[in-house]
Formats: sequence, C-alpha cells, structure tokens
Amino acid sequence: MRSAREAIDELRASAQRCVGVKRVPLVKAGGRVLAKPIVSELDVPPADNSAMDGYALRFDEWPGKTAPMPVSQRITAGSAPAPLEPGTAARIFTGAEIPDGADTVVIQEHTQASEEAVLLTRLPDRCANIRPQGQDIARGREVVHPGCRLRPQELGLLASIGIERVPVFERLRVAIVSTGDELREPGEQLAPGQIYNSNRYLLRGLLESWGFKVVDLGIAKDTPDAIAAVFEAAAERAHVVLSTGGVSVGEEDHVRAVIERLGALALWKIAMKPGKPLAFGRIGETPFIGLPGNPSSALVTALVVARPFLFDCQGRSDVSWRPLEIPAAFSKRGGPREEFLRVRRADGRLERYPNQSSGVLLSASWGDGLAVQAPGRDIEAGDVVPFLAYADLL
Amino acid sequence: MRSAREAIDELRASAQRCVGVKRVPLVKAGGRVLAKPIVSELDVPPADNSAMDGYALRFDEWPGKTAPMPVSQRITAGSAPAPLEPGTAARIFTGAEIPDGADTVVIQEHTQASEEAVLLTRLPDRCANIRPQGQDIARGREVVHPGCRLRPQELGLLASIGIERVPVFERLRVAIVSTGDELREPGEQLAPGQIYNSNRYLLRGLLESWGFKVVDLGIAKDTPDAIAAVFEAAAERAHVVLSTGGVSVGEEDHVRAVIERLGALALWKIAMKPGKPLAFGRIGETPFIGLPGNPSSALVTALVVARPFLFDCQGRSDVSWRPLEIPAAFSKRGGPREEFLRVRRADGRLERYPNQSSGVLLSASWGDGLAVQAPGRDIEAGDVVPFLAYADLL
Repeated sequence: MRSAREAIDELRASAQRCVGVKRVPLVKAGGRVLAKPIVSELDVPPADNSAMDGYALRFDEWPGKTAPMPVSQRITAGSAPAPLEPGTAARIFTGAEIPDGADTVVIQEHTQASEEAVLLTRLPDRCANIRPQGQDIARGREVVHPGCRLRPQELGLLASIGIERVPVFERLRVAIVSTGDELREPGEQLAPGQIYNSNRYLLRGLLESWGFKVVDLGIAKDTPDAIAAVFEAAAERAHVVLSTGGVSVGEEDHVRAVIERLGALALWKIAMKPGKPLAFGRIGETPFIGLPGNPSSALVTALVVARPFLFDCQGRSDVSWRPLEIPAAFSKRGGPREEFLRVRRADGRLERYPNQSSGVLLSASWGDGLAVQAPGRDIEAGDVVPFLAYADLL
Repeated sequence: MRSAREAIDELRASAQRCVGVKRVPLVKAGGRVLAKPIVSELDVPPADNSAMDGYALRFDEWPGKTAPMPVSQRITAGSAPAPLEPGTAARIFTGAEIPDGADTVVIQEHTQASEEAVLLTRLPDRCANIRPQGQDIARGREVVHPGCRLRPQELGLLASIGIERVPVFERLRVAIVSTGDELREPGEQLAPGQIYNSNRYLLRGLLESWGFKVVDLGIAKDTPDAIAAVFEAAAERAHVVLSTGGVSVGEEDHVRAVIERLGALALWKIAMKPGKPLAFGRIGETPFIGLPGNPSSALVTALVVARPFLFDCQGRSDVSWRPLEIPAAFSKRGGPREEFLRVRRADGRLERYPNQSSGVLLSASWGDGLAVQAPGRDIEAGDVVPFLAYADLL
C-alpha cells in the first residue's frame, strides 16, 4: 500500500497542463485561471491625489492660521488641475489630482472658507493627506501570477490597472462515468437491490465548483463491452476521464480489465480511510482515474488525491493542501491507515460525525471539513490536528 | 460612531427574504439555496447489503472450516436475491442485497471455492460485513435544512435519497452602481485626474461568488439628476441596490441627497478600518447600501457588513462570521477603530501585507483573509487573533 501523499506525488508526476489559452473579457473572468503574468503598465494611483476633502497648498507658503489664502481653483475628482498659482490654495476633493506645485492638503475640518479665500487654521505635516503616484502599484510590477484562480479582489485589481481582456486557460473538460448495475437515477423507481446514483451528482458538483466543464456520460451498463464503449466516448470528448465504482478486485469489477485493454492501468491500494482502492491509467492517451464507489470514499479521494492532479491539468498553481491546525473535541485511536475524518468546527474545536461509514454523504454534509489522523497516531481530546476545510478544497 | 457588529445587527434587523421559491433539477441545483427542508422518504441503504465480496450465510448454520457448504445462488449488486435456502451459502458481491435468512457475510479471502460448494475457513462475528438497512439515513429524517447553500456533498446526498427536483430560492438580484466622474472603464484611455473603475468588477465578482444575479448599471454621471435616474432604474430591476463612492459628507458627494429625495437614508460612520462611511436606506421600497469608494474599503465593508444583510435577503442560514483563531506573525498597535487587516497564512501564522492603504486591492489579492484587531488592542507577534478566511466569506 502507498500513502495518500505518495499517491498524490505519483499522480502529479505524470500530470501536465492539457488546456489552451484564450482571452476573455474581464467581466467573464471570475473563477477562471490566469494563463500569463499580468504586469501593470501604469502607476496606481496614476498621479498624486488627495486622500481627503480640503485645500491643497505649498507647505512653505502657509501664511499662518489667521491670514486667509486666496482660492485659485477648484479641483474635483476626475478633472485635470492647472498648476497651483503661487501664494494660493486650491479647493480639492477626495480622489482629485494634486495640482503641480502643491505638496500638502489641509482637511476641510481645519479650515474656514469665505467667498474667495480660506483660513487654514492648522497646518499638518508636509505631504499630509496626499496619496503619492504609484504608492499602491508601481508601473512594471507583476500584480497577478499565472495559475491564480481569479477571485473578486483580483478582478478589481486587474480593472484598476486597466486590463480589459484577460488571458486565461480554457476550462478543463472532465468526463464522468458511473458504473454499477444497482444504480438508478433520482426520479426513477427503485427495484429490490437497487440504490440511487449519488456519485454522479457529487462529482458534477465538485468539478463545477473547481471551474471545470463536465462531460456527463451517466451510468455505464456493467458489462466489459458497455464500459469500453462509454470510456472510449469519454476519452474522445474530455481531457481527463473519471469513473466511480468497479475498481475493486472482484470478478464483477470490470473497469480494470477494460482500461487495460484500452490503454494502461495501475490499480492502487492507498493507505487511507475512506478511500482505499484507486485506479490510475489512460484510455488511449487520455488520463483516467477510477474512484471508489462508496460516496464518502469517492468524495475524499476526489478531494485529496484527484484534485491536485486535476488542478495541474488545468494549470492552477495553488495545488497543495493548506491544513489548519485546530484542537479536536474528540478522542480516537489511530488505525493502520491514514484517516480523513468528517468533522465540523464548533467553538474553536473539531467535532466528529458519529457515523464515519464510507457509505453515506450525511457526514460530509453535516460537517465543514476533514481532520487528518496519521496512521497509528491516537487523537486525544484537545490535541491539535490538521484540518482541511471544504471551503479551501472546493 | 457605531461598531461593525452594531451596524451588521441594525442592517439585519430590517432585512427580509425578498425572493420566491422555484424547483430546479438536481443537476442545476449546485450553489443554490435550499428553500424547504428535505426529508428522506426512504432508508439508505434501502435494504441490508454486503459491505464486501464474499459469501452470505446463516451464522448458526456454519458447518465448520473443513466442511464445504453448497452455494445456492449468486447475488450481484443490483439484482434481487431469493430467500437463502437452508444449509447453503450465497455468493455475494459488494453492494448486493443480503438474501432473507442470511445474517453474516464471510469475505472471499477466507473462503476456498470449488464448482458448487465453498469452504468457509473463518467465521467472523455474527452480522459481520453487512450494512444494515437505514444505517446511513433512516426514513423520515431531515437530511438538508432550508437556508443551506448546496455544496457537492449535498447534491450527492439529495441524489442518494432519490430527489430529482429541488426547491430553491430564486437568485437575489442585486444592482450595482458606481459613482465618480474620475472613473473610466478598463480599455479606455485615462485623461489626467482619472482612474479605472475597479469597484464595479470587484462587486460583480463578489455578488456572483455569492450566487446572486448582478444587475450592472455601470458608472452614473456625478450629478444629482443622473444619479437619481440610475438609482430609480436600479430599484425597479433589483431586490437590493448597492453603490460605491459618493457617501462622504463633501459637497461633491451627491448620493446622500439623492437617496433622501427618493426614499430614506441613514449615513453611518462605522468604527472600522478600512471602511468608515456607509449609507443605508431605501429607494422607494428597495433596500439600498452605499459602500465607500476606496477599493479595499468597498471590499471589506461588502464582506463584513453588507454580506450578512444580503444573505438574509437571499434566505441563507449560514450568515454569521466563523473566525478561525491563528497566531499573528506581526506586531501592531491598536487604533481607535476596529481594524480588518489584510493578511495571509504562512507556516501556521498570519503575515500582514505591508501596505494596508485603503486605496488598493493588491493587499487583498496577496492575502487569503482578514485579521480582526479590536479597537485599542495591541497585537504582539504570537498572539492568537481572529481570522476571517476569504474562502469562508466568498
């Protein structure tokens, strides 16, 4: 058996970005993965501007708090100022450009204005209340790096430097195939021995939340020929094929033989719980990952093992786990395998869902992440354990 | 000045859900907000089934490890078993239904099979390797609660109990209006005094990541009449109107007067940094929130103050902050206002972005959340501080 970490590393060693680059309008770029570095071609702010409403003047020309200064111009945000006439002040508003010659802004709370003159009753430090040109972003700076999935703040940042169209990677196309003759679709009637297919909806949700395009091939009939036909169609239409179920070694598990015929397959036992069996190979040249069929096993192996591989294929740079460290509110003996316990945060500690069976998603829906328990390592209440938040993994 | 907490509570006191309910197919329900409780109408699993590949038998009929048992049937996943003939075992596969009469499964690793009989070399505990009916979900149990935003695991869970169409709230429609004559759109040329409009893209990104529909009214010309016309159009088309900029008290800030004319307005100073000024009111009967114009202020007030109000309007139940507690890697004196510092996690500690100016989004893009510093409370390196992860807020 290999560890989850070894399985991830081995998968990633064979991963390569398999999507092209396109340019999309900034308003469509949310959630897309940046394909090229974005370098600012301008200073932000583009010129010195006022941080407050007030009056701009030359610091050295302040006539004292009892002598009025003539007001020579009025500068609103968005207007182009004239150079400051010597011996005068300029009325100025937040965000407006500082006129040439001025070096200080007196906030309006420290002024008394009449028709054409103003009394500046308190002089601040030289250069006060001015946001200098390039303070926030200097021209030539790389502001967003390739591989970054664009969040709202990156969209705003790109807008602030005038980026209208953004080079992003095309969405990774991932095909999903469910196997198992016991599976029926929601809305259908269950006959004895049958269950509803939850993995299809689970995987669609995961892949969509990762920003991929889903090629959904539904349920393959559980015969070698039917599985082969569906897998070949999947490999033709997608960059990566995922399946659930049929990866055990039983005589009713056909996925293994089919993939060996169509390409190549390694069948792994991973020392993780839930999630032990995993198949990895290719259909022709298309990468294939066979996830276990139990829903919680499918969820955990998708989040832990498949996700880094898929992110690499998509060109994302933020691939690695970033576990938090949170005290456990429970005790549990360590087992032979690394365990990914479905837990939730409550009052700063991690509570464990009582039923950690791999058959049901209730534990994952109840919780907000996975606590990682190393093999053979007991957890006592109060011990700090690594916590992978779903919010970070989705 | 009121605290951020007071502002949030006051906003939420006037919030009400303003969207209707519709039913969508399960495949379209990801990211939508559940409108009604979902109660399972079936047991999961629907009948006892085998957790392993092996042989099902009556525990009390085991003939010992040297006496073969006849194999009376073969049960694959998805097929309907016949009652178990007395004195026999049934070949059975993972997920297949346990036949009436059997109560135990021997895994195939502990068997030696010949043509029509099997040697069961080791008897496990009574009832071993069987997943009992209803173990995961008992009929009648509420499995997902109203107000939950549906994640992949909820989609899988709903599928597992056969839900084909899901009652969800309609998407909240939120209009956005930028004000400020200094604003230009990315792709346009900047004249002196002008800057690019970043808040529009920032807010679009935020609202879309929250699952809302954006009604984008672009930039309003900075005159009272122009702002009034755009606000009225916004209120007609959306459930809530958000604007950025123009909420200070300066003579060039027209938003206040316009909203007072069209409905009602409170202008708040909130003791938070960034983000001090905030306007709250209505245009006719449509709620209105005026965010500050500086991009980081707009981001932080949107995440901290506007988000809970908007989630209430959408019918979400997971509204409250859930800060993590993480040690700071920096020291910083407390100020008069509560500060929301742009930080990032590195090696289990929070690093602070050096430039916390409210003018730029670089700090928010660099980081992965906000450290909350109480007014007047110094932070020393190593102190544990509340941390709001963007991943939890978006």
